[in-house]
Amino acid sequence: MLTQSHLYQEIHSQPAVLENLLRAERDHIRRIGATLQTQRITNVFIAARGTSDNAGRYAQYLFGAVNRLPVGLATPSLYTIYKRPPLFQDALVIGISQSGASPDIVSVIAQASQQGAVTLAITNEPTSPLAQAAQHIIPLHAGAERSVAATKTYTTQLMALALLSAALANDETMFDALAQAPAQMARLLELNDVIARAAERYRYMRVCVVIGRGYNYATAFEMALKIKELTYVLAEPYSSADFMHGPVALVEEAFPTIVVAPSGLMQTEMRGFIETLQARGAEVIVLSDAAELLALARMPLRMTVTTPEWLSPLVTIVPGQLFAMHLANVRDYDVDRPRGLKKVTETR
Amino acid sequence: MLTQSHLYQEIHSQPAVLENLLRAERDHIRRIGATLQTQRITNVFIAARGTSDNAGRYAQYLFGAVNRLPVGLATPSLYTIYKRPPLFQDALVIGISQSGASPDIVSVIAQASQQGAVTLAITNEPTSPLAQAAQHIIPLHAGAERSVAATKTYTTQLMALALLSAALANDETMFDALAQAPAQMARLLELNDVIARAAERYRYMRVCVVIGRGYNYATAFEMALKIKELTYVLAEPYSSADFMHGPVALVEEAFPTIVVAPSGLMQTEMRGFIETLQARGAEVIVLSDAAELLALARMPLRMTVTTPEWLSPLVTIVPGQLFAMHLANVRDYDVDRPRGLKKVTETR
Repeated sequence: MLTQSHLYQEIHSQPAVLENLLRAERDHIRRIGATLQTQRITNVFIAARGTSDNAGRYAQYLFGAVNRLPVGLATPSLYTIYKRPPLFQDALVIGISQSGASPDIVSVIAQASQQGAVTLAITNEPTSPLAQAAQHIIPLHAGAERSVAATKTYTTQLMALALLSAALANDETMFDALAQAPAQMARLLELNDVIARAAERYRYMRVCVVIGRGYNYATAFEMALKIKELTYVLAEPYSSADFMHGPVALVEEAFPTIVVAPSGLMQTEMRGFIETLQARGAEVIVLSDAAELLALARMPLRMTVTTPEWLSPLVTIVPGQLFAMHLANVRDYDVDRPRGLKKVTETR
Repeated sequence: MLTQSHLYQEIHSQPAVLENLLRAERDHIRRIGATLQTQRITNVFIAARGTSDNAGRYAQYLFGAVNRLPVGLATPSLYTIYKRPPLFQDALVIGISQSGASPDIVSVIAQASQQGAVTLAITNEPTSPLAQAAQHIIPLHAGAERSVAATKTYTTQLMALALLSAALANDETMFDALAQAPAQMARLLELNDVIARAAERYRYMRVCVVIGRGYNYATAFEMALKIKELTYVLAEPYSSADFMHGPVALVEEAFPTIVVAPSGLMQTEMRGFIETLQARGAEVIVLSDAAELLALARMPLRMTVTTPEWLSPLVTIVPGQLFAMHLANVRDYDVDRPRGLKKVTETR
């Protein structure tokens, strides 16, 4: 049965797994936050690959807006191949990796630790080389992830980052909002059958773009990655602003565009963007809780929960995961064993 | 005549335009470098969109390896839409824009200047809002760019960034190498007809990926962007390492992959990557001066010059520009007026 796949089970386990993480790590992350507050940190760099890198993209916006910290993504080849690592000063350097085993990510954290930077590992394997190289460790408590495509380790990474942001800001409102995320995610998982039916329409889709901006830039990247891994459709992620600087030329009649646009400050921007797509005859799939945006879509995917915008990436990815899984099912692909992928990818 | 397009002329004008920039700005950039050396700069952030953002990707590796500075890409929506700008400390903040007119990029530089950060504008329009918002300005001296697809403004941006890196490092060897770039670029432009013939084979290509890592990560992004803008083929750029973390599942028999791999420290990594692609039956197009890599390709695009690896992005993009232009010609598209694009894109 398709619904018995590891992927299906892992997607549906996320509310419980997030509860685990909250229970096990909330106080620990508060203590990490308190320690970091005593140190001079003026910039943050994040080393990660694939799904974990998309969690890093969320942190760029969250730490930027909430903690007012500029966050960049690291360039691992400077450590492993060119052997000319940048010198971190007053930096927090975070490595994010499900396995904690990719040598390039370990190298960045090991080098940063040697330089005296503050280092943090966020990983599902608390005894991994990555964890050993870092001063602080946040274990994800997600349990073994048996599907090659990462789902529960992604949402736990987002939760870990959001808890850290809340801890650095001493913001109890954020902690309270995060405590509600598992229940909200459970409500979105009820969309499973609706999304399965919606996916049918895209049986023969060859390419698509996935658009998000701001907090949900990360969601666009992660949804596109799931689509690529599971369905072999070339799904390219873009911020709506970057898309207008050239790639919009791609859009012709029926071109499939998925727009991730929960309600919030980005909503006006996304409405204008959807109208641009419509004017060019694109097939617009809108993932949103906002009625005005859903009304513009050829294919509305209505989210049944509304969250603060900063928290929305934790839940908006759920329909994205479901869509990618069901599209793979519609195409009769094995969702647990995508062709040519291993669970642990070791790049140097 | 196709060869009379603005795009053709602008691509072929690049050696002369780079000479202009060297003549007009080398001493000025040395002075900027000397000023910056007197200031405490521990981190660099770059705000840019589209082609200019790809120039920023080059700076991430160049400033990282040569100047040992961690470089991140800014998140403009935090400034314009969320109005929660990160606080820069000990930072150099660089805005890169051909027109200097995109409000989101101007906002980042204006805010950084207000915060007291060191700010620099790199633009073809030295009286633009971007230039007015920055403390230092490097004008590109590229002349009006009439083709919508940016070419000469990209290579002059790379040259400006490389001159700045050399100035910050007081590295005369770098200045000398950069002085040779226009002549090397002129030699690569002689590949025009060879590349026109090679492009013919891809008349019916629907999608492709463009791979580069390290210094030429930027080249992969920029070549992919030119292909999208000019030929409407969905060309997605990837680092070879990121590609292995999921998207490699896309690769099936005949899947077109363009690998940008000039000789240098990255060469071994790229050889292994090409072999992975070959094992899956991909159609591999290799852009390189290294015989061992060209020998592995189904379609070798031999570069006739060898440069230091740090400088190679200035010249490797030239065959990339030619390939995108000729592929558009093969498909009978108007290269000067890609559908749905304007020259100046104003995103907020």
